[in-house]
Amino acid sequence: MGSTEDLDYPQIIVQYSNGFLISKVMFTACELGVFDLLLESGKPLSSDAIAAHLGASTMGVERLLDACVGLKLLAVEMTQEGALYRNTEISNVYLTKSSPKSQYHIMMYYSKTVYLCWQYLADAVREGRNQYEKAFGVSSRDPFGAMYRSDEEMVKFMAGQNSVWSICGRDVLSAFDLSSFTQIYDLGGGGGALAQECVSLYPNSTVTIYDLPKVVQVAREKFVSPEERQITFHEGDFFNDSIPEAELYILSKILHDWDDDKCKQLLEKVYKACKPGGGVLLVESLLNEDKSGPVETQLYSMNMLVQTEGRERTAAEYSKLLEAAGFGMIQVKRTGKLYDAVLGRK
Amino acid sequence: MGSTEDLDYPQIIVQYSNGFLISKVMFTACELGVFDLLLESGKPLSSDAIAAHLGASTMGVERLLDACVGLKLLAVEMTQEGALYRNTEISNVYLTKSSPKSQYHIMMYYSKTVYLCWQYLADAVREGRNQYEKAFGVSSRDPFGAMYRSDEEMVKFMAGQNSVWSICGRDVLSAFDLSSFTQIYDLGGGGGALAQECVSLYPNSTVTIYDLPKVVQVAREKFVSPEERQITFHEGDFFNDSIPEAELYILSKILHDWDDDKCKQLLEKVYKACKPGGGVLLVESLLNEDKSGPVETQLYSMNMLVQTEGRERTAAEYSKLLEAAGFGMIQVKRTGKLYDAVLGRK
Repeated sequence: MGSTEDLDYPQIIVQYSNGFLISKVMFTACELGVFDLLLESGKPLSSDAIAAHLGASTMGVERLLDACVGLKLLAVEMTQEGALYRNTEISNVYLTKSSPKSQYHIMMYYSKTVYLCWQYLADAVREGRNQYEKAFGVSSRDPFGAMYRSDEEMVKFMAGQNSVWSICGRDVLSAFDLSSFTQIYDLGGGGGALAQECVSLYPNSTVTIYDLPKVVQVAREKFVSPEERQITFHEGDFFNDSIPEAELYILSKILHDWDDDKCKQLLEKVYKACKPGGGVLLVESLLNEDKSGPVETQLYSMNMLVQTEGRERTAAEYSKLLEAAGFGMIQVKRTGKLYDAVLGRK
Repeated sequence: MGSTEDLDYPQIIVQYSNGFLISKVMFTACELGVFDLLLESGKPLSSDAIAAHLGASTMGVERLLDACVGLKLLAVEMTQEGALYRNTEISNVYLTKSSPKSQYHIMMYYSKTVYLCWQYLADAVREGRNQYEKAFGVSSRDPFGAMYRSDEEMVKFMAGQNSVWSICGRDVLSAFDLSSFTQIYDLGGGGGALAQECVSLYPNSTVTIYDLPKVVQVAREKFVSPEERQITFHEGDFFNDSIPEAELYILSKILHDWDDDKCKQLLEKVYKACKPGGGVLLVESLLNEDKSGPVETQLYSMNMLVQTEGRERTAAEYSKLLEAAGFGMIQVKRTGKLYDAVLGRK
């Protein structure tokens, strides 16, 4: 940055301008099933064969494959029968639907919902509020009413969050030794992937997913096996309904949806419900105190503007919120990945 | 790529997913005038001051500024009066409206037009055609009818192309010594920035911008000063109207809009009109022959699918098109920037 070379030709600006093209190429290759097909086929395929399998135009598919090669999401080999494409290892692991670490669902949520909301980023900044009305014609007063505006949208969101925990869940749950807590509530636990990581990491724990009735219903039907004996459910709205007593409450990507007042209100309720000696685990993406980054978290804080009533915060800001509610002995652990952990004790 | 570290945590996939967030943060800071304000103010400003000047919410503006800091488009200093923001050098040069190298207009075109077209990338790949109908409700049969669907859109497009030539024009025009050509036609020369670079680089040349009547009208009114004696205009449609005789024809980002048949048709017309000993200069972003990249060009080829009837091509493909029309002594020069040059002679 700022070198003579950059000032002669703004490589970084070109790269930033092309960011949305890169996102959409990856999202679209996922959506059309390119990586799934190449995983299943077990051998490299031509663009003609891929287009035929996917029922898509050869002209479009060939270019999509070539762009994926440039992004190193596919590899190509020039043979006598023409170009043959195969997945790279990272695509096999993260971009196929069937992989345990699949990011397919979060990509579809990004591609079909978040991308469209961000068309109105300038309005969000001007007005200081979310853009559901312009993007989807639904009221922006109740963000979760807007986010769960249809069952399909709700399932997409839940599946997307589950993708995130498949790559980040273990790190945030092992940031602290939580083995002394056996009775755990995951408030707003949604599709349950974090709860599943938790019972797998802490075999003596029982996790209750506390979420809205329609979310719990979908979690039971689609995401959490009834044979999973360590996971139970509790239907409720944690702002308006009571919160049962437990040893540990997980608030994972919850506080970032709300302003300070709502956060305090929720944390006070959690503090009252919490057993003495118990605790609360915040799982959030932490901003640096000096505004230097991480850039991903700064971007997500903008997304909170576009989609919610909240924002991303620094460790000091979360500590202050926890202290205001009565929690003490606050510990912060950065994981080096997208989500970090903050533990407070009663 | 493909290292153990990447497979444990897919940094590159997170980065690609966030691409559209990065684009939109930069586009939006440009649109709201953040960089212009900070250039004019001549001193670092607080987010409150910036929000007040821009008539935007403090909550939204502060986050936008912080995200720009993470992207190194702004610098921040933590002072006793709070955080103060200033432009980085690259922002002063490329992101302010008043800079001679301003990329503001191409960003607005990307942000408001291209971004929305790309919402339909999956459909474009399936159908193998542009997506103006879904994105803007205009017929996709005539791409330039769709691109120039309003005067406002046309001006935005022309201004955007001019931004590109302000950073890439000199390189493509100096790739070959064109000083022996004094009578030059820039076919589809639009807003005239490339023509202006040409007469500045080759003081003995006269460049005629050949474009549709409404484009020529706007170029005269908004972009090319009447005092610019070395630039003249010719109104016409180069597919349907005659092309006058000249020594050199520039086809800059023209062939990439069209399929091979249309390209051949146009190049044959150009060949017939061309003086013996004259030539044609193609200015395009060249794909590698082995499909390895450049990734920017692969992405632009996808954009040609979404917005036009054309595609990006390799040097061999352009050479073949030129040879089919009768041109010889073909030379190819890569500039290392976005656009390259191919010269053919009659």
